Amino acid sequence: MNKHRYCVVMCGGIGSRFWPFSRTDMPKQFLDFFGTGKSLLQLTVDRILPLVSPDHIILVTNAAYARIVKDQLPEIKERNILLEPARRNTAPCICWAASHIYAMDPDASIVTLPSDHLILKENAFLETLEEGFRFVEEGERLLTLGINPTSPNTGYGYIQRGAQVTGYPGICKVKTFTEKPNKEMAKVFIETGEFFWNAGIFLWTAKSVLQAFLKYDKETLAIFETEENVYGTEWETSFINSRFPHAPSNSIDYAIMEKADNVFVKSADLGWSDLGSWKALYEVSPKTQDGNVTQNCNVLTYNCKDSIIAATGDKIVVASGLEGYIVADNDNVLMICPIAEEQQIKHVVNDVKSRFGEKYI
Amino acid sequence: MNKHRYCVVMCGGIGSRFWPFSRTDMPKQFLDFFGTGKSLLQLTVDRILPLVSPDHIILVTNAAYARIVKDQLPEIKERNILLEPARRNTAPCICWAASHIYAMDPDASIVTLPSDHLILKENAFLETLEEGFRFVEEGERLLTLGINPTSPNTGYGYIQRGAQVTGYPGICKVKTFTEKPNKEMAKVFIETGEFFWNAGIFLWTAKSVLQAFLKYDKETLAIFETEENVYGTEWETSFINSRFPHAPSNSIDYAIMEKADNVFVKSADLGWSDLGSWKALYEVSPKTQDGNVTQNCNVLTYNCKDSIIAATGDKIVVASGLEGYIVADNDNVLMICPIAEEQQIKHVVNDVKSRFGEKYI
Repeated sequence: MNKHRYCVVMCGGIGSRFWPFSRTDMPKQFLDFFGTGKSLLQLTVDRILPLVSPDHIILVTNAAYARIVKDQLPEIKERNILLEPARRNTAPCICWAASHIYAMDPDASIVTLPSDHLILKENAFLETLEEGFRFVEEGERLLTLGINPTSPNTGYGYIQRGAQVTGYPGICKVKTFTEKPNKEMAKVFIETGEFFWNAGIFLWTAKSVLQAFLKYDKETLAIFETEENVYGTEWETSFINSRFPHAPSNSIDYAIMEKADNVFVKSADLGWSDLGSWKALYEVSPKTQDGNVTQNCNVLTYNCKDSIIAATGDKIVVASGLEGYIVADNDNVLMICPIAEEQQIKHVVNDVKSRFGEKYI
Repeated sequence: MNKHRYCVVMCGGIGSRFWPFSRTDMPKQFLDFFGTGKSLLQLTVDRILPLVSPDHIILVTNAAYARIVKDQLPEIKERNILLEPARRNTAPCICWAASHIYAMDPDASIVTLPSDHLILKENAFLETLEEGFRFVEEGERLLTLGINPTSPNTGYGYIQRGAQVTGYPGICKVKTFTEKPNKEMAKVFIETGEFFWNAGIFLWTAKSVLQAFLKYDKETLAIFETEENVYGTEWETSFINSRFPHAPSNSIDYAIMEKADNVFVKSADLGWSDLGSWKALYEVSPKTQDGNVTQNCNVLTYNCKDSIIAATGDKIVVASGLEGYIVADNDNVLMICPIAEEQQIKHVVNDVKSRFGEKYI
């Protein structure tokens, strides 16, 4: 195991598209989505362990989730859990984690992982990261993983590949990033064969990514710069709590990846889904003969087709005559809605919040 | 208040057509169906109080519901609550109650009421009973109330009227009883103008109904006959517990009403519904502009029509794109089914019982 390799797991998101299962106080990444006995976060950490030691795994989450993260991952030392005092998207998160790791180990290389995705091909994943680490450790390079698209999905970011890098099969220069194209554009993207889905998995050295912040997002970098080192000391928490809220809210894609000229993409076949929505979950889940997904719960269906039904605990669901529906029953909320309208869930969440209050969100 | 008048309230049923709200351990009659703060049973007792004193109200229920009945009706003395040790339909229930009352008061007249119906016109109800009592107190007559049918409902029993009784407006001899006709027959029934729905509300004297048992259902009567009177004594319970289970299971309609030649019907306009099913509840409930009934719960609908949505406690239901559905969420069961298929609910209940067990029934 290369002792300069680190992993940053981002686990502070809200996952509102999975409401009412994903809730403000218990978002998607902490849920046992597939009934395996492990949350998506736990699965994410388990998956990386053959490559990175627990001491080198840094979890970045919102302070509100400190308890859950500690409970779910007792093997990760408390000093490796970075608690964001405010929600500022991925750029500040990554900049802090890189600053923190760089202070410990200026030769560190880092893979940054979302905590709420599905990856079925674990060996391919580890091999891809191994090759990715070697690539970024040899120069000032920012690497993102690209998934071969299987449909013109409009919910993903797309990466257009440029020239192939000599000596690194599967790694290309990145030509363009496109966030959530419309259907027509997505179809064209796929036809050209030049586009990948952006998996949101990044590799770089701590030095390279901080260099990129210096070039493309000084404002964010300034938040985390100190005269005297505070990272890894007892002062880090108070320093972050005073500084972090002033960071602009920004995604790493927008802050760095879309601007930098040293960005590369490594194509990978990982059995990947971002599990970004009920529809995405439906698509990757095993189905009954009628095309129903009964998400880890007791279900009795009559004349139901192509639906996803999810409930918790010992609840049973009896459903008749539904076609293409999401039925999601969790705690104090029951939602029934056509899968085709799942993009409306975020509006629904707003409606529920304003009409019935925070306790349902 | 006539001191020989009694009321028997039958409240031992299971109400399985209202599953999953009506449950084996808390059937329909004990539920606060309309969010008024009173159960259907409590509403039934309240409704009769202007006509019959609490001391003359006899509740007959299954022994399993003793606690619930006492809790819901503290004003009824314990000696007025008759606990059936087994489920034997209405004939044994009525025969016991009549025997019990007759022993106390051989001149008693009795109105027998279901405990789980809706009656909106309380004054008309009381006037009808008052007239009915006078009619049965004057001779050996069995009287049932008939509701003017408003649709060819196939879930009700139908009563065909014969000759008008002179001097008693609205009271006719009964020509035939027909239990749950098919749609075509129900339509013909309504067209003739000779048919009423059977409301299951009966009036007679204790003596008359016991006489009818003697003529038409000796087997049941024998169960309740004693050499020495036990009714109203400390021996009644053990006597009933040893005898009652041997009674044949039979409805009063089949045992007596369809056979006797002294059966009369009094037509009544009571704003009545037997609340026999979700559809019946839907029909009598106030509706939103889109024709939805949101049964006493917090609901947010999008593109929903003609549906009934029921949940308990502080649960919210978000529903989109449903038309003509029942959504019923109660405790450990969620049921979603087209209103048009509500007749299947009893089969569903059987399926659930055999697949998931008693705790869902």
